[in-house]
Amino acid sequence: MNNKLINYFLKITSLTPDEIEVLTESMIIKKVSKGSFLVKEGQFNTDTFFVLDGLVRQYKLIDGNDITTNFYTEEQWIMSLESFEKETPSDYFLACVEDTTVVIGNEQKAQELFKQFPRFETTSRQIMETVFFEQQKLMASYITDKPEQRYLKLLKARPDIFQRVPQYDIATYIGVKPESLSRIRKKLSEKG
Amino acid sequence: MNNKLINYFLKITSLTPDEIEVLTESMIIKKVSKGSFLVKEGQFNTDTFFVLDGLVRQYKLIDGNDITTNFYTEEQWIMSLESFEKETPSDYFLACVEDTTVVIGNEQKAQELFKQFPRFETTSRQIMETVFFEQQKLMASYITDKPEQRYLKLLKARPDIFQRVPQYDIATYIGVKPESLSRIRKKLSEKG
Repeated sequence: MNNKLINYFLKITSLTPDEIEVLTESMIIKKVSKGSFLVKEGQFNTDTFFVLDGLVRQYKLIDGNDITTNFYTEEQWIMSLESFEKETPSDYFLACVEDTTVVIGNEQKAQELFKQFPRFETTSRQIMETVFFEQQKLMASYITDKPEQRYLKLLKARPDIFQRVPQYDIATYIGVKPESLSRIRKKLSEKG
Repeated sequence: MNNKLINYFLKITSLTPDEIEVLTESMIIKKVSKGSFLVKEGQFNTDTFFVLDGLVRQYKLIDGNDITTNFYTEEQWIMSLESFEKETPSDYFLACVEDTTVVIGNEQKAQELFKQFPRFETTSRQIMETVFFEQQKLMASYITDKPEQRYLKLLKARPDIFQRVPQYDIATYIGVKPESLSRIRKKLSEKG
């Protein structure tokens, strides 16, 4: 199971058998049932998660409305501000939409690994860069794209999401009301 | 002048006089006049910039409309996807709204520094994390806040921006038409 994370590392860097063994042994795997939470609003979370299997929905309650801010699926990192600024309680929920398995990481664990294998710090920096730049793309899309374009981009980049979460969550994620999402879908299906 | 970057590093880590000297000597400083560009759409940019002085506006042309996606001012990093994925030409402009001075960095230069001072890689990772998390906050605000809240947040976090750029750019940045920005301002001034 945890080979997904090893495979992820192997896309970025080479690993010796020793390094693979240490990494594998040091991994803390957590299984979370569908409907349960990795993090709840108000909790102090200092962990980072790598999704091995399943789907995690990040959302906020804004004036009582549930607004989805992200979907995390296989081979994605969930890194949050709160992980590093420990004084700040989480202002969002991380809910498992499916039975989910994650690897748990944190700064202390990372530092221990860096001491043993200094070059992992380079790998860590590269991962951070990748995650950062993916987010930058998403962010630019939020500023410049209309909901219809965001819908199409999500459909193209992550078609599986549409089979795995309710329409309501897709609607709030692309920033429209559910009825507007229906209109977008209708319009697009008419266009062919 | 370049002490602003040294001071920035000193907030994150301690530096020996030797390290300060090497860093200072290795810095490439670029002065760009008001109205000129650091990067234009279509260019292949592999540099990262640290703003010492001035104001850089990032914008895209969407169907001929100029949409501001970021403002960078003193002590901010401009890191972009294109810096690391060299195959991709820039899809945005970085325009200097004021006479601007930046320190230029790139991956090759970073690698040379890391060889000489391995612990700078930790510092680099920490900077990346900070920039990443600032962006995460901004991103969450884009998904969950209404334009009026984005206006208020920008006013609170970066009041100087309002004196330094045209209203039009503030409007596209918070995602509204200029006339809607006027309405927001009027509404807020009536509220007191």
